[in-house]
Amino acid sequence: MIGGGRGAFIGAVHRLAAAMDGKAELVAGAFSSDPARSKASGADLLLDPARVYGTYAEMVKGEAAMPPERRLDFVVIATPNHEHFPPAKLFLEAGFNVVCDKPVTLNLPEAKRLRAIVRKTRKVFVLTHNYTGNVMVKQARRLVQSGRLGKIRKIVVEYPQGWLSTPLETTGHKQAVWRADPKRSGAANCLGDVGTHAENLARTITGLRIESLCADLTSFVTGRKLEDDANILVRFQEGAKGVLHASQISVGEENNLNIRVYGTKAGIEWHQERPDELVVKFPDRPRQIWRRGNPYIDASAGRFARVPAGHPEGYLEAFGNVYREAFRAIAAEVGNRPQPKDLDFPTIDDGVEGMAFIEAAVRSSRNGSRWVRLRRE
Amino acid sequence: MIGGGRGAFIGAVHRLAAAMDGKAELVAGAFSSDPARSKASGADLLLDPARVYGTYAEMVKGEAAMPPERRLDFVVIATPNHEHFPPAKLFLEAGFNVVCDKPVTLNLPEAKRLRAIVRKTRKVFVLTHNYTGNVMVKQARRLVQSGRLGKIRKIVVEYPQGWLSTPLETTGHKQAVWRADPKRSGAANCLGDVGTHAENLARTITGLRIESLCADLTSFVTGRKLEDDANILVRFQEGAKGVLHASQISVGEENNLNIRVYGTKAGIEWHQERPDELVVKFPDRPRQIWRRGNPYIDASAGRFARVPAGHPEGYLEAFGNVYREAFRAIAAEVGNRPQPKDLDFPTIDDGVEGMAFIEAAVRSSRNGSRWVRLRRE
Amino acid sequence: MIGGGRGAFIGAVHRLAAAMDGKAELVAGAFSSDPARSKASGADLLLDPARVYGTYAEMVKGEAAMPPERRLDFVVIATPNHEHFPPAKLFLEAGFNVVCDKPVTLNLPEAKRLRAIVRKTRKVFVLTHNYTGNVMVKQARRLVQSGRLGKIRKIVVEYPQGWLSTPLETTGHKQAVWRADPKRSGAANCLGDVGTHAENLARTITGLRIESLCADLTSFVTGRKLEDDANILVRFQEGAKGVLHASQISVGEENNLNIRVYGTKAGIEWHQERPDELVVKFPDRPRQIWRRGNPYIDASAGRFARVPAGHPEGYLEAFGNVYREAFRAIAAEVGNRPQPKDLDFPTIDDGVEGMAFIEAAVRSSRNGSRWVRLRRE
Amino acid sequence: MIGGGRGAFIGAVHRLAAAMDGKAELVAGAFSSDPARSKASGADLLLDPARVYGTYAEMVKGEAAMPPERRLDFVVIATPNHEHFPPAKLFLEAGFNVVCDKPVTLNLPEAKRLRAIVRKTRKVFVLTHNYTGNVMVKQARRLVQSGRLGKIRKIVVEYPQGWLSTPLETTGHKQAVWRADPKRSGAANCLGDVGTHAENLARTITGLRIESLCADLTSFVTGRKLEDDANILVRFQEGAKGVLHASQISVGEENNLNIRVYGTKAGIEWHQERPDELVVKFPDRPRQIWRRGNPYIDASAGRFARVPAGHPEGYLEAFGNVYREAFRAIAAEVGNRPQPKDLDFPTIDDGVEGMAFIEAAVRSSRNGSRWVRLRRE
Repeated sequence: MIGGGRGAFIGAVHRLAAAMDGKAELVAGAFSSDPARSKASGADLLLDPARVYGTYAEMVKGEAAMPPERRLDFVVIATPNHEHFPPAKLFLEAGFNVVCDKPVTLNLPEAKRLRAIVRKTRKVFVLTHNYTGNVMVKQARRLVQSGRLGKIRKIVVEYPQGWLSTPLETTGHKQAVWRADPKRSGAANCLGDVGTHAENLARTITGLRIESLCADLTSFVTGRKLEDDANILVRFQEGAKGVLHASQISVGEENNLNIRVYGTKAGIEWHQERPDELVVKFPDRPRQIWRRGNPYIDASAGRFARVPAGHPEGYLEAFGNVYREAFRAIAAEVGNRPQPKDLDFPTIDDGVEGMAFIEAAVRSSRNGSRWVRLRRE
Repeated sequence: MIGGGRGAFIGAVHRLAAAMDGKAELVAGAFSSDPARSKASGADLLLDPARVYGTYAEMVKGEAAMPPERRLDFVVIATPNHEHFPPAKLFLEAGFNVVCDKPVTLNLPEAKRLRAIVRKTRKVFVLTHNYTGNVMVKQARRLVQSGRLGKIRKIVVEYPQGWLSTPLETTGHKQAVWRADPKRSGAANCLGDVGTHAENLARTITGLRIESLCADLTSFVTGRKLEDDANILVRFQEGAKGVLHASQISVGEENNLNIRVYGTKAGIEWHQERPDELVVKFPDRPRQIWRRGNPYIDASAGRFARVPAGHPEGYLEAFGNVYREAFRAIAAEVGNRPQPKDLDFPTIDDGVEGMAFIEAAVRSSRNGSRWVRLRRE
Repeated sequence: MIGGGRGAFIGAVHRLAAAMDGKAELVAGAFSSDPARSKASGADLLLDPARVYGTYAEMVKGEAAMPPERRLDFVVIATPNHEHFPPAKLFLEAGFNVVCDKPVTLNLPEAKRLRAIVRKTRKVFVLTHNYTGNVMVKQARRLVQSGRLGKIRKIVVEYPQGWLSTPLETTGHKQAVWRADPKRSGAANCLGDVGTHAENLARTITGLRIESLCADLTSFVTGRKLEDDANILVRFQEGAKGVLHASQISVGEENNLNIRVYGTKAGIEWHQERPDELVVKFPDRPRQIWRRGNPYIDASAGRFARVPAGHPEGYLEAFGNVYREAFRAIAAEVGNRPQPKDLDFPTIDDGVEGMAFIEAAVRSSRNGSRWVRLRRE
Repeated sequence: MIGGGRGAFIGAVHRLAAAMDGKAELVAGAFSSDPARSKASGADLLLDPARVYGTYAEMVKGEAAMPPERRLDFVVIATPNHEHFPPAKLFLEAGFNVVCDKPVTLNLPEAKRLRAIVRKTRKVFVLTHNYTGNVMVKQARRLVQSGRLGKIRKIVVEYPQGWLSTPLETTGHKQAVWRADPKRSGAANCLGDVGTHAENLARTITGLRIESLCADLTSFVTGRKLEDDANILVRFQEGAKGVLHASQISVGEENNLNIRVYGTKAGIEWHQERPDELVVKFPDRPRQIWRRGNPYIDASAGRFARVPAGHPEGYLEAFGNVYREAFRAIAAEVGNRPQPKDLDFPTIDDGVEGMAFIEAAVRSSRNGSRWVRLRRE
């Protein structure tokens, strides 16, 4: 693991999620940009000190020198955004599979370069857009694919949070500090942190890419350099339109990612804070509540459930589902077997798409919030 | 009553709402642009045939000629949009008080002219933005006014419906036909029908006017001339920002007007389909559910409740609250008493504001969905 | 109207509900057991003083002496329980139709006597179990009748309130005072006030009568003579079983009447505080939310809706639906026409059933909360 | 692990829950009463074949013979009810700590005997009443303890499920087969499976034991020997009263454990299917929604959260919390350190209480559903 040392939030989540099915073991890490802190974190985790590195550059060397049976099967990158591309490049080129936190890189050019590296090395690269690991998100995607919604017309996707409604970064709060820092976050804060999840969720469910957008980004908290709120009009492929808004100053909101998709025949609604339910709305029939764990759930979604209906699953289970699929891909890669046909995890292409979204939104906002097209290639 | 004859929807609602407290009696009407239909509708309503008129022009003459004790105290205009201004002008200038459906007129210039007439005649003019008659909307406004939300930063207001997701107007459906017709609806369909309620709700609660907006209007249903979906970025006074979207093609949605307002200290959320509840969210305290009918409700809101807590009130009660206040104003006007200080109903100024909103949104959309400023004066 | 004078709650509700469709006019009353208060209340209501009576005994004489075209079409009894039977008897025997609040009488023997009087006089007698006026309650009943739930196995019906969790009756609170007084309430307080609504709701929806029950009644508030909480095991006809509990000390609850019915094929759930929704649960299909105002609602239920889907209806509308049907019956009776076949309101038989339920529950509780059978005949 | 082999449900849950924090490793097992199946299950789990035993009797011998550094720290019993007491006794007396599924034993006498053994051996014994591992259940308990609800008056606790609404046991469904079999389930099916969770939840939150009860147990499905539905009136210590009902034939219900507790000052409501929320209701203040992960959560509850507010936790996390505390106790025991003061898991005393509840309910029902007292000593 790269990053995720003492005081980090997402590192611990990666460890819980990866361990959920008992299919992975943490054996090595460079847990901090501070070598001493990395060592201490490794000790916290009861790792062999020989495999706790001061830097990821040392780690890639040390691990590459290991005999194959002891080598890492994959590395997890759980650092701030600016430290995604460099280790990802190093490890991929040294022959390691990579699981990487989102947004995939610091900026769009890096994302495109990383895409080229992934394609060239042919290693497994998994991007942890964890919310798409939810069973009912997969069911929603299946409903769209099956044509039950008809042609998609409108998408409303939201990700309001309130945790940055005060200048938390001035208090030394670790996550707040780096997210508010353009050097580590990139050109966007709120969009990188949560907006890109919203983009990914909409595209995962509907299969539609954003073609153009018009973004109104704001830094509400005095002194903050990056936006903490984003209101965006979006135009998708195939004539669908919509609204995407994300926020860190929507006070009192916790982690309220949600989406509504309306087609010609039916609409769906999903809320991350009640993840086991999917509402389906019809023009002429009773509204339906689809619930995880039931026999009517499509097998392509239902296979990700761990416990029966009515036994709530949540954030860690969804995150674990990304890992579950990652492990299938990694096991095939390590075993020199062909990749399974039905792999279901976010890839480097999702990463590029997300960075193209962020880049366009920032470009729009800087140019008077006018309409701009996404640039992916 | 002008309009509201056989087959009309909103006319019957006006009659139920006006009758709710037993303070008004329907005595005269011109119920249709078709004189025979008007007569028939009057007969349905058991009115004196002498006071059922073929046209509103006849009606204003007939009623003005009545002795004062039998004259109408006020007239209700419940016609399609193009028939708001002409009868409103006639009746106001003939000395009658007017209750008028929204949007106030066919277009912004008419609204401004009507504003001048109302100011000149000094008659009571009430605009039936009925949703602001809800007790918990009034409570929300009170919470903002009291400063409990702090300074307002973000407003998200939505009004999705799905009833026009098919070309219903081609089937002869009365409301669909006129709403889809620019001659009767004006430059907008969805915005006039529901979008203007959203604008009014946001402004009523927060007191903030929209300064500029960027609108993406769409006619999704083939052959429809006016928009059936509207996604709008909005910038309010005092630096608040937000999103307003309204739709008639959000399939499966019924009448899902809702609003979220986020300040520096707290946020609120209200849904028209669950009108008796108001959610208040804090950064550091348990979320609160304020419910109509309880002792903690502010008197300025609570005085509009008719039944105790837990006994649901709904659409008609809220509509009736607009009439309740209208009757207080009309009684004072008719009785030559000064107007009460605490009158609480939407006025001609709300009408102008709504038309300025519609005009700006249409102008923005026609100009490549660029940002435009509202023009009220 | 009998009762419902100054300070009364339910009298005003009756007036609003009866007036809702503009089909009834209040013309006479004996509004209080105190003649002066009755007179004052009549003046409040702008009635002809000649038809405001000091007592209902005077009223029945006065009205019976009226010429037929001016006579009352029906009388509404909205007094405390002990004053239901005497005026009901008087008016029925004088040839008037009667709308009476529930519980129908002070005790079971009175209820049976009243049943005999209704049968003999053949006048219309309507009992205002208002909650069964809700459209979605009627839809629930229809689903049971249609066999879609299969054979009914279990019924859970609840009516928790919290308004008497303190000794409110010692403060002079009008409703609390008489409800806590056995002379005016009868042998039960909570059961008469709300428990009987729960019994009526369960029977209306399922068509099943309670055969036997085991009741644990409690007076939690010190000094209160009658029960303020009731927990009851119930056995229905045809082998169905269930739980009925009602309370006035469930602190923080407002008016949370709700029911769940489980059959062999499907289950339903309805909550009075969200009356426009009915949840239908299946073993093998997505849960359904049926909502008032939609085309799939059965005509026998849907005909009671006043406004479209998504426009909330509530307590007054449901209460008004009892009156709507009462007026159809009364109009036929007054016009000497046969009664419509599809009349849908609670009758004297519901009244007897409710009193048999109360009598059995009190008897059970007084005998060590053992099982007892209901005695209706 | 004892039990939990191929086809078992709860065994896999125990493994996921125990592994959640990376603090336990499965090293040995007797996974089935069928030795071949046990071996195959051990192979599935990649265990050392030498530590996969044909029976738990072999296992206790084999493990007791291990050198201390390789010996099991504890054993998990995840078998049908009749196989709880025998292995628990064996392992405790051989010096092993035990984590045991509920209900603790096949019947009350066994539970009392096991209590004596636990007391004598002084080993750690943990009963996996997993729902009390939920953070918001712990918070609810804290609110009661703090006096914020006042004196408790009424408790309504429910556990409806629908999975046995058909004769599933006749299809060979593994869980259904043993639960319907008195030899393996004991005197109760529904009460042992879910009813005892309801009893445990009510007591955990309120601290009040049931003194007496009156139970109406039913086998609705033809041919089923044990009850599949239970309606119970309960009287708690200190004058509190309530209703407890549990069901396996409440068709369409999944796992709807829920509780409402009403005191003199406030009431609370918690639903297992939405576990991160706790509703608090007051007579005179807005209703509150307490949500896991927030700063206002009491430390004694909040310390069990793994992810922040708005990131849903569910069934496995709550189950894992029982294990988290078990591991603290076991680590102390294995390390010969004193037990932590703040241990928070269900114990053998909860087990005896649960069996006393089941025994009383069955006794009541067999005796005409009359009131009976619980016998614990």
